[in-house]
Amino acid sequence: MAVSNIRYGAGVTKEVGMDLQNMGAKKVCLMTDKNLSQLPPVQTVMDSLVKSGISFQVYDSVRVEPTDGSFMDAIEFAKKGAFDAYVAVGGGSTMDTCKAANLYASSPHSEFLDYVNAPIGKGKPVTVPLKPLIAVPTTSGTGSETTGVAIFDYEHMKVKTGIASRAIKPTLGLVDPLHTLHMPCQVVANSGFDVLCHALESYTAIPYNMRSPCPSNPIQRPAYQGSNPISDIWAVHALRIVAKYLKRAVKNPDDLEARSSMHLASAFAGIGFGNAGVHLCHGMSYPISGLVKTYKAKEYNVDHPLVPHGLSVVLTSPAVFTFTAQMFPERHLETAEILGADIRTARTQDAGPVLADTLRQFLFDLKVDDGLGALGYSKDDIPSLVKGTLPQERVTKLAPRAQSEEDLSALFEASMKLY
Amino acid sequence: MAVSNIRYGAGVTKEVGMDLQNMGAKKVCLMTDKNLSQLPPVQTVMDSLVKSGISFQVYDSVRVEPTDGSFMDAIEFAKKGAFDAYVAVGGGSTMDTCKAANLYASSPHSEFLDYVNAPIGKGKPVTVPLKPLIAVPTTSGTGSETTGVAIFDYEHMKVKTGIASRAIKPTLGLVDPLHTLHMPCQVVANSGFDVLCHALESYTAIPYNMRSPCPSNPIQRPAYQGSNPISDIWAVHALRIVAKYLKRAVKNPDDLEARSSMHLASAFAGIGFGNAGVHLCHGMSYPISGLVKTYKAKEYNVDHPLVPHGLSVVLTSPAVFTFTAQMFPERHLETAEILGADIRTARTQDAGPVLADTLRQFLFDLKVDDGLGALGYSKDDIPSLVKGTLPQERVTKLAPRAQSEEDLSALFEASMKLY
Repeated sequence: MAVSNIRYGAGVTKEVGMDLQNMGAKKVCLMTDKNLSQLPPVQTVMDSLVKSGISFQVYDSVRVEPTDGSFMDAIEFAKKGAFDAYVAVGGGSTMDTCKAANLYASSPHSEFLDYVNAPIGKGKPVTVPLKPLIAVPTTSGTGSETTGVAIFDYEHMKVKTGIASRAIKPTLGLVDPLHTLHMPCQVVANSGFDVLCHALESYTAIPYNMRSPCPSNPIQRPAYQGSNPISDIWAVHALRIVAKYLKRAVKNPDDLEARSSMHLASAFAGIGFGNAGVHLCHGMSYPISGLVKTYKAKEYNVDHPLVPHGLSVVLTSPAVFTFTAQMFPERHLETAEILGADIRTARTQDAGPVLADTLRQFLFDLKVDDGLGALGYSKDDIPSLVKGTLPQERVTKLAPRAQSEEDLSALFEASMKLY
Repeated sequence: MAVSNIRYGAGVTKEVGMDLQNMGAKKVCLMTDKNLSQLPPVQTVMDSLVKSGISFQVYDSVRVEPTDGSFMDAIEFAKKGAFDAYVAVGGGSTMDTCKAANLYASSPHSEFLDYVNAPIGKGKPVTVPLKPLIAVPTTSGTGSETTGVAIFDYEHMKVKTGIASRAIKPTLGLVDPLHTLHMPCQVVANSGFDVLCHALESYTAIPYNMRSPCPSNPIQRPAYQGSNPISDIWAVHALRIVAKYLKRAVKNPDDLEARSSMHLASAFAGIGFGNAGVHLCHGMSYPISGLVKTYKAKEYNVDHPLVPHGLSVVLTSPAVFTFTAQMFPERHLETAEILGADIRTARTQDAGPVLADTLRQFLFDLKVDDGLGALGYSKDDIPSLVKGTLPQERVTKLAPRAQSEEDLSALFEASMKLY
């Protein structure tokens, strides 16, 4: 189990200059997106860098829900800059873009697909040394500050894929709850759904000792190991926090306790799924985001159609856990109970529906769009959605139950309307 | 929160040769003690090294409860060997000795006291790069595979002290439950008490945001940060395992489930206290071990008087938590409940006695010696015990309540007889 280095506390971001100084950094790349570049988290980081006398360049063209094209742009910037350290200030999109920039700038002769997950890319192991990267999350969902994963849309295949290697895990994550106060409510909700699904999927993933094939050399172990006694702790704990605080965090921007707790839950769930993996909600979410037509999420200030990652993940969750519950019904019931269900009279065979109903109620309370239909998808899109899921076997094979194409079709169909 | 890399599973030790190969090691130092050198865990490691074609030298003179002299002997061996990696197979004594050997062999011009904790040593920060160290714990108590701490008896002061730096944390811990089956029952009990106290002390340590002084630069942060939301998770989880499995693990050497669970609990509690710290039970334990006269623990095959670390720690626990409970009574009650107490009618002001009584019952059930008196200590020894505790301020200052010399005297006195 790889555990991540994070520092938690209100105001820890102010120390980033000293941290970089301690790492010997002299020329730093600060990555962020255009919205954030005007907001306090980036200002705090810049002030700290200036105070520590560290010279830096700002790259603020990170795309929300990045693509291979936007990754490439950031990589070019990183190559030209010849930086000796990176700071990423933002959500998953920014942290992931920065991980990719650091990787390819450190491995300048690699082709872009070399490190991208198979079967889309070559999935080569990373053997080059990378520069230090400090991640400062400003959303509470991705957990990217704790993981060795960078996700992007591979545009000409219209599908999400990524790079997964322990080597790209941030050197340090600064989990500073003060950054959560600027988040629009919809961003809090959607990023919270990502935490919810990280926790549920990693807790119900195939157990580490049932995964196959067993690699002959430990270096060939995948980043995602299956559920295990350590990731279980993180998953359950993150889920308890989601159950207690997500609604409060969404409804009241000034509820620092709730927003701080969700910020920490995001890191906790990240450590959990970063070791155990995710499965069907995430595997199916990539085409849901990738094939977006005209849907534009409320409160997201972007100039392109966008299904926020957390939304694309959570809409299939009732169908997915109905499907997987037969394998580990106790775990499904346990999570339903954490989310508020009364399971005293529930039978094992009802575990799936019980969890699904609990999730539907949870989403309804938060006024979430009524299924994939509300995002503009119809029955006719199901073949493309299935086709977009098939290459995600790196995650879908971690589901506790194998899926045929027919199964995937049925899961998408059941997710068209939720309530 | 700092990183600990562990791999858990029956048989993971067999992979150690490949792990070392993956780290580029060519000349490895294998450290263990004389008893273990004849037992399966060491044999498994040697077979794996041979299979991977890695040349190695064995140092089997580790002293159980090491001293500066025994550390020095191991350091000399390491310096002469010019090794490029280390494997420690054993309990805390072996892992700690190996950490020290790696550190001083990597920093050959340092004086021994340079890195030893102040005020006994100079407590210099470690800035030299160390060689990879793989720790293979064969007891279930120390958690040393996850921590940057190495403890020893400083002989001419008759007091325990240590080296604490993130730099000496093992590169990888192989937590293999198969190694727990050879452990004598008394070793299981005493090492389990260490887990119990790691969990209780780190959970009740002063909170990270109440610790002072707040260092101006993050590099000056101590290894022990005070209790925090992440260490709390590890502490509580470890405690639940202790409550459920320790008695079973002691009573039945063939109970693989119980012994495996305790092996993992040891690592969990290690990650917890490795970040949060321990306080009075540990601070007071060092003179209890260091001033030992003639007491020889049952089932420990050693040629010198010995109070096992876990025993020296747990005997003061009823007195210590009675003393500290007024600061965080809810946490004290919560831990009492986890350990089996019925707290439904307990009042906040009874938190100390409730936890103390629960601990006494727990120790009585496990037939633990009846207090410091049973170890050969009397009232006359209290001034020396207090004097030996005072230099332990690195840990004692993490207690939630400050202590005067009179307080320490009273705590030792209350620990002379338990039942």
